[in-house]
Amino acid sequence: MSNKPLARPIAIVDEVRCRKNIKNMVEKATKSNTVLRPHFKTHQSLEIGRWFREHGVTGITVSTPEMARYFAKDGWDDITLAFPFYPGQVEDVMELQKSCDIRLFVSDVETVSFVEKNLEKPIKILIEADAGYNRSGTADLTKIDTIIHAAKSSKFVQFYGFYSHDGDTYKVKGKKQIKDKVERNYSLFAQLKEKYPNAKFCIGDTPSCCVMDDFRMVDEISPGNFIFFDWMQTNIGSCSINEIGLLVKVPIAQLKEKSDQLIVHGGAVHLSKDCITVDGVQTYGQPVYFDEDLIKPIPGAYVTSLSQEHGIIQGAKQVIPHINSDNSVWICPVHSCLTANLFGHYQTSTGTTIEKKILS
Amino acid sequence: MSNKPLARPIAIVDEVRCRKNIKNMVEKATKSNTVLRPHFKTHQSLEIGRWFREHGVTGITVSTPEMARYFAKDGWDDITLAFPFYPGQVEDVMELQKSCDIRLFVSDVETVSFVEKNLEKPIKILIEADAGYNRSGTADLTKIDTIIHAAKSSKFVQFYGFYSHDGDTYKVKGKKQIKDKVERNYSLFAQLKEKYPNAKFCIGDTPSCCVMDDFRMVDEISPGNFIFFDWMQTNIGSCSINEIGLLVKVPIAQLKEKSDQLIVHGGAVHLSKDCITVDGVQTYGQPVYFDEDLIKPIPGAYVTSLSQEHGIIQGAKQVIPHINSDNSVWICPVHSCLTANLFGHYQTSTGTTIEKKILS
Repeated sequence: MSNKPLARPIAIVDEVRCRKNIKNMVEKATKSNTVLRPHFKTHQSLEIGRWFREHGVTGITVSTPEMARYFAKDGWDDITLAFPFYPGQVEDVMELQKSCDIRLFVSDVETVSFVEKNLEKPIKILIEADAGYNRSGTADLTKIDTIIHAAKSSKFVQFYGFYSHDGDTYKVKGKKQIKDKVERNYSLFAQLKEKYPNAKFCIGDTPSCCVMDDFRMVDEISPGNFIFFDWMQTNIGSCSINEIGLLVKVPIAQLKEKSDQLIVHGGAVHLSKDCITVDGVQTYGQPVYFDEDLIKPIPGAYVTSLSQEHGIIQGAKQVIPHINSDNSVWICPVHSCLTANLFGHYQTSTGTTIEKKILS
Repeated sequence: MSNKPLARPIAIVDEVRCRKNIKNMVEKATKSNTVLRPHFKTHQSLEIGRWFREHGVTGITVSTPEMARYFAKDGWDDITLAFPFYPGQVEDVMELQKSCDIRLFVSDVETVSFVEKNLEKPIKILIEADAGYNRSGTADLTKIDTIIHAAKSSKFVQFYGFYSHDGDTYKVKGKKQIKDKVERNYSLFAQLKEKYPNAKFCIGDTPSCCVMDDFRMVDEISPGNFIFFDWMQTNIGSCSINEIGLLVKVPIAQLKEKSDQLIVHGGAVHLSKDCITVDGVQTYGQPVYFDEDLIKPIPGAYVTSLSQEHGIIQGAKQVIPHINSDNSVWICPVHSCLTANLFGHYQTSTGTTIEKKILS
C-alpha cells in the first residue's frame, strides 16, 4: 500500500480470507448434508454475494425486503426474509414474488391469515421456533399447531419448516457452552420433528454453525457473520483471529504519550458502539497487526472509548511499533455486521473498491 | 398520517420543534454576546442547514472534510473542522480552501509545521484545550506556547483561539453538575486569556450550551445535538422531552404478551447501540407518545435490547394503548447524532422527505 497518509477511515475486506471462510462453510454444509443459505445482511454487497455464487450457493437469507430487492437485481431468486413478517411489508413482498421465491418468518396465526388474504401467489413460511433466546418467535406448541393447520387449509401459505436463531450463543465462550445452547435447539427440534416429520429445520447463528460438526437435526444453515468474523466471534471461539475478513484502517489523529493513548479517526460512526469485555476491559475494537499471512492482536492495546468520530486506543506504547507508513493503525471490529453497515463501500487490501450499499 | 401499515423504520424530523431549538440557541448566543457556529454533524442535511441560515447563522462546524465539502456546495463558506487535523486531510483541506474559510484544530507544534509546509493559503487554527475530559487536545501550557510561537513566525498558520469540548458534561445530571464541568473549562480559559488576551474562546458541548446562561469566558459556541436533542440530553437536563426534534417510528413485528414484550423492526442499524441507564434499566431508546403539542415517555416501557434489525420493548402493556393506526410505535433515540447518521433521509411529520447524507 502507498505511503501517502491515510485521508479517512476505510473498511478493508480481505478477499482471500473471505473466500476461504465461504469455502469452509460450503464444505461443512455439504459434508453434513445441510443446505447453506447464507445471511447477506453482514456484507450488503453484490460483489461479495457473487463470491458465494461461485461456490455453488443458490439460496440466500436477508433481513428486509429492501435487501432482498437489492440482491434480486443481481439474479438471486430464492430468498428467505429472516425477520418476523409484518403487514407493512406486504406490497414489497408481492413485488419481490414477481421474480423470486420468497420465504417468510411467522409466529402467529393472525399473520398466516393476513398473508392468505393479501398475497396473490403461493409463499413458503418458516415458523420461528424459540428454544430459549426470548427474542422473536414462539415456543408454544399449541400456537405452532394452529399455524400449521391454518397453512394446510390455505391457498397461498405453504408451511416449509422451522427456523430457530439462538442468539444466546453470542454470549458464551467455547465449544462446550455453545453446544449446550445447540442442544436446547435440538431438543425443541426433536419434539417438533416427531409431530411434523416433513418439516425442514434451520438454524442461523454463526457460533453454532462454526463450532458444531453435528448438524443431525438441521436441514439448512443461514449464518451471516462468518464471511467476515470479528473480535466478538474470536472471543466466543467461532474463529481464529487470523480468519477475520474485515478490518478498519484508521488514521492517527493525535499521540498522547503521557496518558499512553492514541486518538484515532475512527468513532461510533465507523466501528459502532457494540462492545465486549476482554481481559476485564470494555472494548470497542482490537488494534491488530495485519498482513497477508497474519492477523494478531497487539497485546495490551484496546479501543476503550468511542465518540461520534473519535476513537481512543489505550496502550499507545504497544501500538506505536505497528503504526503503518500511511499514519494509520488496523482495528479489528467487535461486531463486523454493524461496522460493515456503517460504510458506503469497502476496499480490498490492494486498494480496489468493492461496491456495497447501506441497506438498513 | 395514513392508516396504511408502516413498511419500514423511519426517522421523523419535527420541523416546528427543530426550528424552535435553533431560534432558542440563536437568541441565547445573541443575548450573551457569543457567536453561534452550530455543529452540523448531527443532522447532516442541507435542508436543515438552511433553517439555520434563515436565523442568521453564517459560520458552521463539521467533523470531516467530506462533511465540509457537502455543506460548502450549498454556499457555506466559513467552516470549522472540529477534529484534530492530521496529514492525510491536507489535500481535502486545500481543495476546500478554494471556496471556504477553513479553521483547523491542532494540539502540537508538529501539526503547525506540517500545515505551514504543505498549505498554500493562510488558515486559522484553534488549539484544542483539554480542561479534563482527556480525549483529544492538550492541557500543557508549554506545548500551547510553542504552538502559538510557531504560528506567529509562520506564513500560513494564523492562531485564532482555543476550543474546549468537555464531553464529561454528557455523563452528569442537572445544572449544578454541568456547572462544575463548565467551571473547569472557564478556569483553564482564564489562565489562557491572561497569557493570550486576543485569543477567541470556544466551547461546543450541548449540555453546557443549553444549561448555562453565563458565557463570560466564551466567544463562540458550537453545539450540534441541540437541533434534535434526545433521551440522553433529556436525562442530563439539557432539554425537556417535548423539545425533541427527531423520533424514530418503528413497525411492530410481534407482540409477546406472556413476556410483556413487543418486538419491533428497529435495531442497532436504526437506533445505534448507544445506551443509558434510566430507572436502573439499561435502555437503547424510550417509547413515547407523540403529537404536534406533546411528547411524553410511556412510563414503564423501555427498549431493553437491540440486535441488528430487532428491537425489544419491555413493557408491552403500557405501550399497546399508544400503538399508532399504522401498526407502529414512536421511539425517542438515546443519542440522536448516531441515530441520524444511520438514516439515508428523514421524513417530516406530514410525510415529506428531507434529504440528508450519511457523511461518516
